[in-house]
Amino acid sequence: MKEQIEQYFDRLWPICRSITGNGVRESLDILSEIIPLTKKEIPSGSQVFDWTVPKEWNVRDAYILTPTGQKIADFKKNNLHLVSYSTPINQKITYSDLIEHLHTLPDQPNAIPYVTSYYKERWGFCISHNEFLGLSKEGEYTVVVDSELSNGHLTYGELVLPGDTSEEIFFSTYICHPSMANNELSGPLALAFLYQKIASLPKRKYTYRFAFIPETIGAICYLSENGEKMKANTHAGFVLTCCGNNDIFHYKRSRRGNSITDKVVEHFLVQTQTDYSIRNFRPDGSDERQYCSPGFNLPVGSLMRTPYYEYTQYHTSFDNKSFIDFESLEGSVDAYFHIIQILELNGHFRNTVMNCEPQLGKRDLYPSSLSPADSREFIDIVLHLLNYSDGQHDLIDIANKQGIDVLKYAQPLKKCLEKGVLIAEK
Amino acid sequence: MKEQIEQYFDRLWPICRSITGNGVRESLDILSEIIPLTKKEIPSGSQVFDWTVPKEWNVRDAYILTPTGQKIADFKKNNLHLVSYSTPINQKITYSDLIEHLHTLPDQPNAIPYVTSYYKERWGFCISHNEFLGLSKEGEYTVVVDSELSNGHLTYGELVLPGDTSEEIFFSTYICHPSMANNELSGPLALAFLYQKIASLPKRKYTYRFAFIPETIGAICYLSENGEKMKANTHAGFVLTCCGNNDIFHYKRSRRGNSITDKVVEHFLVQTQTDYSIRNFRPDGSDERQYCSPGFNLPVGSLMRTPYYEYTQYHTSFDNKSFIDFESLEGSVDAYFHIIQILELNGHFRNTVMNCEPQLGKRDLYPSSLSPADSREFIDIVLHLLNYSDGQHDLIDIANKQGIDVLKYAQPLKKCLEKGVLIAEK
Amino acid sequence: MKEQIEQYFDRLWPICRSITGNGVRESLDILSEIIPLTKKEIPSGSQVFDWTVPKEWNVRDAYILTPTGQKIADFKKNNLHLVSYSTPINQKITYSDLIEHLHTLPDQPNAIPYVTSYYKERWGFCISHNEFLGLSKEGEYTVVVDSELSNGHLTYGELVLPGDTSEEIFFSTYICHPSMANNELSGPLALAFLYQKIASLPKRKYTYRFAFIPETIGAICYLSENGEKMKANTHAGFVLTCCGNNDIFHYKRSRRGNSITDKVVEHFLVQTQTDYSIRNFRPDGSDERQYCSPGFNLPVGSLMRTPYYEYTQYHTSFDNKSFIDFESLEGSVDAYFHIIQILELNGHFRNTVMNCEPQLGKRDLYPSSLSPADSREFIDIVLHLLNYSDGQHDLIDIANKQGIDVLKYAQPLKKCLEKGVLIAEK
Repeated sequence: MKEQIEQYFDRLWPICRSITGNGVRESLDILSEIIPLTKKEIPSGSQVFDWTVPKEWNVRDAYILTPTGQKIADFKKNNLHLVSYSTPINQKITYSDLIEHLHTLPDQPNAIPYVTSYYKERWGFCISHNEFLGLSKEGEYTVVVDSELSNGHLTYGELVLPGDTSEEIFFSTYICHPSMANNELSGPLALAFLYQKIASLPKRKYTYRFAFIPETIGAICYLSENGEKMKANTHAGFVLTCCGNNDIFHYKRSRRGNSITDKVVEHFLVQTQTDYSIRNFRPDGSDERQYCSPGFNLPVGSLMRTPYYEYTQYHTSFDNKSFIDFESLEGSVDAYFHIIQILELNGHFRNTVMNCEPQLGKRDLYPSSLSPADSREFIDIVLHLLNYSDGQHDLIDIANKQGIDVLKYAQPLKKCLEKGVLIAEK
Repeated sequence: MKEQIEQYFDRLWPICRSITGNGVRESLDILSEIIPLTKKEIPSGSQVFDWTVPKEWNVRDAYILTPTGQKIADFKKNNLHLVSYSTPINQKITYSDLIEHLHTLPDQPNAIPYVTSYYKERWGFCISHNEFLGLSKEGEYTVVVDSELSNGHLTYGELVLPGDTSEEIFFSTYICHPSMANNELSGPLALAFLYQKIASLPKRKYTYRFAFIPETIGAICYLSENGEKMKANTHAGFVLTCCGNNDIFHYKRSRRGNSITDKVVEHFLVQTQTDYSIRNFRPDGSDERQYCSPGFNLPVGSLMRTPYYEYTQYHTSFDNKSFIDFESLEGSVDAYFHIIQILELNGHFRNTVMNCEPQLGKRDLYPSSLSPADSREFIDIVLHLLNYSDGQHDLIDIANKQGIDVLKYAQPLKKCLEKGVLIAEK
Repeated sequence: MKEQIEQYFDRLWPICRSITGNGVRESLDILSEIIPLTKKEIPSGSQVFDWTVPKEWNVRDAYILTPTGQKIADFKKNNLHLVSYSTPINQKITYSDLIEHLHTLPDQPNAIPYVTSYYKERWGFCISHNEFLGLSKEGEYTVVVDSELSNGHLTYGELVLPGDTSEEIFFSTYICHPSMANNELSGPLALAFLYQKIASLPKRKYTYRFAFIPETIGAICYLSENGEKMKANTHAGFVLTCCGNNDIFHYKRSRRGNSITDKVVEHFLVQTQTDYSIRNFRPDGSDERQYCSPGFNLPVGSLMRTPYYEYTQYHTSFDNKSFIDFESLEGSVDAYFHIIQILELNGHFRNTVMNCEPQLGKRDLYPSSLSPADSREFIDIVLHLLNYSDGQHDLIDIANKQGIDVLKYAQPLKKCLEKGVLIAEK
């Protein structure tokens, strides 16, 4: 799978994505080869809760000509050079006027920063601090931003994959970031490939909802259209972001702090990972800010590699292909899929013999061998399943008591159901 | 006391105990010299919840003759040599047929393992792995199991010692293990001697129920006869097992995890022991599996020395007299008795002067000496008793707050009751 | 401020304070220069809950003349030399009779102990153990206690400073201790100066109640007069004691353990102090014993420097001016005032845009600068305020989640209220 992920990464990388525009549509088209997304469009000017959908932004070209005619800050070479949502300009200006519109990172002098100005109209360029230091203070510069900022649409991609029930598992990732890797080509790529694994499950208890949206305003649009329904139906939810670099897993809890999302991810981390970090929700970061706003308070968490804010390459040109690796990205897909499998398996069961243990031997649930070490794990699982399947404990609760990965319950559970010592609770 | 315990140990040691049979009856007769047990018998074939009482098993002799006529695996020398519930046989067989029926422990080459086959009829012998390695592969072996497996009874011993109320404290121990020491002559011996201490109390608030039963099927029989009543009446309960070797105390909580049994034992351990371990309930181990099955969920825990599974001598011939010591066994009796004294003392009381402190001086509850260090502990206890006797806290809660053994409250409590600043709550 | 505190310390130090008497009145008069206390008097013999107000005690002089005519244990030099509430005497006695009435501290041979006998009439002197060892066993001693123990009054000082609501914050300190510094001139001094800071607040949500009382019997009198009202109105409360020496803060929780008093002090300690200690309520110590008696159970805690019992100078002549320092005492005043400011700021607010985040930019709540590092703290606070202002969380809860001092919320909160994205909950 990781070779395939890399191929898609390479195709998506150069596209200029922002919160609106053709780059978003083009990216969704490519991703639709992996996950059959439906594109939805919200017109500029639409009111969504406290917000208004902004104009659509498209860029043909952007650069600066130095007094000696050298082309720098070339958008075609690296789309980070242009402040996102820059208004059109084509003008000669002095050094001192120019630098009002330049953004650099003095602390990381070789990095181009990532800057946006969605809600205030202006233009600007981002260059490395070293390049900035070499600029001549004399002579005339030419700035060219061949962009368009006009009424159009905000575009997002959506797929709802039905299951046996209307209870939903929700995934969101954002497709508004230009050429950066961990934040944020890793999220859309991981989610597209995760879809393929979920779609291939022979049976699905849950309905799965996938949203590929621009950050913040996209999430707000999405909630404006689906929020009430999602409040009623969402069993668990996840924001996929920052999941491509080689690091342990970091889990940011949902605002509720004890949702089934938190419970399943924490079980996964404790039982399968040797090292990991878990932190409480904070109202910063990504789209969990909207999903976990107090009016919705959805059970949405985020399992990441190195989270936003916590790596120096974050929001710079150094968050590039060499910062991530496709084995780690695939590992993130696998982790999410493991979690999904737990959610699909999980449930409440009831012991049909509540008084004392059932006699396992007469049902072939006990080994007839006299060297019980062989089947100790199987017996232990069966005893845990039987003792705690009292209507109070779901499988995750039971596996937490036993201290093993709940996926190990799949076969013993099946046998207990076949033998009639357990029945599923409605 | 410990000399007496040792004498009984020596008498009980050689008897072949199993889940039924004359060895059980004989053992109960000997224990009845210490605790006046009533023997109860359940016929083979009786249905008890999901189980059926098995046939009764008795053995007269069992051994193997080697090709050279040497008698090995001699049941009369060590009753562990015979797989418990072995069917009768008297036959000449080859080495290759014989070894299908031999059990050894390659990792502990000098130990004879303990093996049973209650619910599948077969025969077998247990020998040390070193003895096994020395067996000739040529010639003819003779196997003799002079046993009987026929309809009879399952036998257990019971005593109910009445107290002022019908609320019960329940003790269970198992009398089905052949010649092993920590698991399990320590439990029956400790419980028998604990009975003597409880019986000698001048006053008993609780009724005490003692069950000396074969493991698993005996507990299931016992619950089949008494379970509903025990659900209604059991205040606290304990399985006595593995309490004879020289180790710190290990407490396995009841399934409820916060029962009064758990509360009193944890208070005892924290306030009186420098080192100890506490673990949650697991549905393995001993008869707590039945008492804490979800249909009963009795408040039954187990205070042990080194628990089953956790010592290499467990279920082998090395769990013998030299593995235990009678001072530790007596210490276990003392610990249980300390716990019983706490349960008898414990209760809810009410301060009759709720607004501000009562004036202790005018009631002779405050020292008239001006060197208060002398009676600081007494005053501290009285202040804690008065402040927290508000109907919400029992004595254990109060002593936990103060951080001392609740038995230290006996005298100050008595004085406060006499002076009328405290009254007992119904 | 600290010079002023020191001046008052020096004036109050020599006065003989006890639970009644002219020393109490004189001390209250001096303190009234800082806080305009009203003096209240309860007649001797009054019944207050389980107690009776004792006789009033006044001393003119007290000393011992040695056989050689040397004056020792001179009350006029150090009022600790006389056991508090000593009855009058003027008599010649032998060494062996004298020593029945002498109190020393063998473990601290240079310290004069502090001893009282309020409820049993007797007389006694306190001297250093070294002085005691030098006393001649021959010849005649003269003991003089020129005291009066007669019907009079118990006197205390009170001030109620009204606020916008009838909900009260209660402060208590005790004015019964003779010449000692940390325990207890520090408490009355800190409280008097704290009053000045509270009185200078431009606005007060809470009414403030200040009690300067003799310990134990004074608190009981005070509750006898005000207790029912205080049960209804007390939002938070504090006993000020032992707050003058150079040590970290030690907080003793209210009996409730989770009162707003506990919550605010623990927030203050965690967010502003690098080192501190927090302990649960115990029914010993000072007047929290009465305020937290089960009938009242007021939310009264105590923030101290080194608590009573925990320093060797406690209740001896070594708890003097050199044991404390006025910077630490002023620091205690500041700490209490910080806590008061938190309580005044604290409250529940409600986000008026519950679905998704409000758009901060259009309300000037988001920086228009593209270098967001500048205003990251402001934004973080606003996001926390908005997300958690759901009616469930007060400001302290929110600041605990964010991990910063809640006083940093004052300005952002004001802006959010002005912009209408937050409204105060009733």
